[in-house]
Amino acid sequence: MKSYRKELWFNVPSRRGFVNITGQVGECIKESGIREGLCLVNAMHITASVFINDNESGLHRDYEKWLEGLAPHEPVGQYRHNDTGEDNADAHLKRQVMGREVVVAITDGRMDFGPWEQIFYGEFDGRRRKRVLVKIIGE
Amino acid sequence: MKSYRKELWFNVPSRRGFVNITGQVGECIKESGIREGLCLVNAMHITASVFINDNESGLHRDYEKWLEGLAPHEPVGQYRHNDTGEDNADAHLKRQVMGREVVVAITDGRMDFGPWEQIFYGEFDGRRRKRVLVKIIGE
Amino acid sequence: MKSYRKELWFNVPSRRGFVNITGQVGECIKESGIREGLCLVNAMHITASVFINDNESGLHRDYEKWLEGLAPHEPVGQYRHNDTGEDNADAHLKRQVMGREVVVAITDGRMDFGPWEQIFYGEFDGRRRKRVLVKIIGE
Repeated sequence: MKSYRKELWFNVPSRRGFVNITGQVGECIKESGIREGLCLVNAMHITASVFINDNESGLHRDYEKWLEGLAPHEPVGQYRHNDTGEDNADAHLKRQVMGREVVVAITDGRMDFGPWEQIFYGEFDGRRRKRVLVKIIGE
Repeated sequence: MKSYRKELWFNVPSRRGFVNITGQVGECIKESGIREGLCLVNAMHITASVFINDNESGLHRDYEKWLEGLAPHEPVGQYRHNDTGEDNADAHLKRQVMGREVVVAITDGRMDFGPWEQIFYGEFDGRRRKRVLVKIIGE
Repeated sequence: MKSYRKELWFNVPSRRGFVNITGQVGECIKESGIREGLCLVNAMHITASVFINDNESGLHRDYEKWLEGLAPHEPVGQYRHNDTGEDNADAHLKRQVMGREVVVAITDGRMDFGPWEQIFYGEFDGRRRKRVLVKIIGE
């Protein structure tokens, strides 16, 4: 069994945003030399997500609006977490809807994906450097 | 390390529906000959889910109603994704709540499940052929 | 390839609650002797979650209130699942938002975590004994 590990770093300039990381994860798989296995991709921060969906900007605007409806940022005083001095309680909630991680099959040395699957980093409390972990096992 | 891969195909005749795929995933595990490992089961399409919950029709009606409340199909014009000519933006949202994938432990050649766990394919934009990937690694 | 399996048991004295299980999962990883691999931690019951987020009591109160808003326990008669004599339909819904499982990377014999990541058992229908499965593969 082989294993591989890499951290990807992001600094999203706004509070919220989505970054397509499919290419970077693909590079990791190539670098790993693993032909058959599983690839875990997870946010290392608890106010961010990694998820798989469509690379379509209209949909990303729908996600933004929908998540803001389900867990509004304002008023920040509605959340007990923000009593600690934070203002990011909503980001901890949004991240649960979108998920922490994806597990991707590797077949013949490549991501084993359907036609439209793309991997995204979802930032809900940005404007600082944050990390994603890529861990691959297989052979 | 051994690995195994199979695609399961579905054609749900309505827009939305749930299909119990526990038996089919169990067949894959048997076919793989893997006794100890991890089994990834993921929707290969981004308007469908794979999730684990109860095989109870009343609950499935509750999921249907609840998801329609959280991310209504109509009016389709409320979603920017539908400006592309699609009418399935709600399906992309519903799939995030229910999840893309499950990872199942394999112990002694079988799914290592609690008493009520069953695996479902969740369709949110049906009436066409779509796939689920089963990928197993272990030995 | 090595594999390891353990069940963790919980009996949350209230209907809902969150239990930090990071230490127990860490013990499993140590016991397994696995240095590089993947660790699956999943609820074996379908009205409970395993998720990764912040160990902060204010946030846990926010989760409680938020989930109760998204999928209220009362009135129990609003759910068809409860026609079976159960009163826990809301727990099946809440568990989908918070997730069934996490997959954690193991690097150098330890959980490969960001600074604030902690693993929680989320109970939505407690007052009885329920289990979490820890399954590790690697070497």
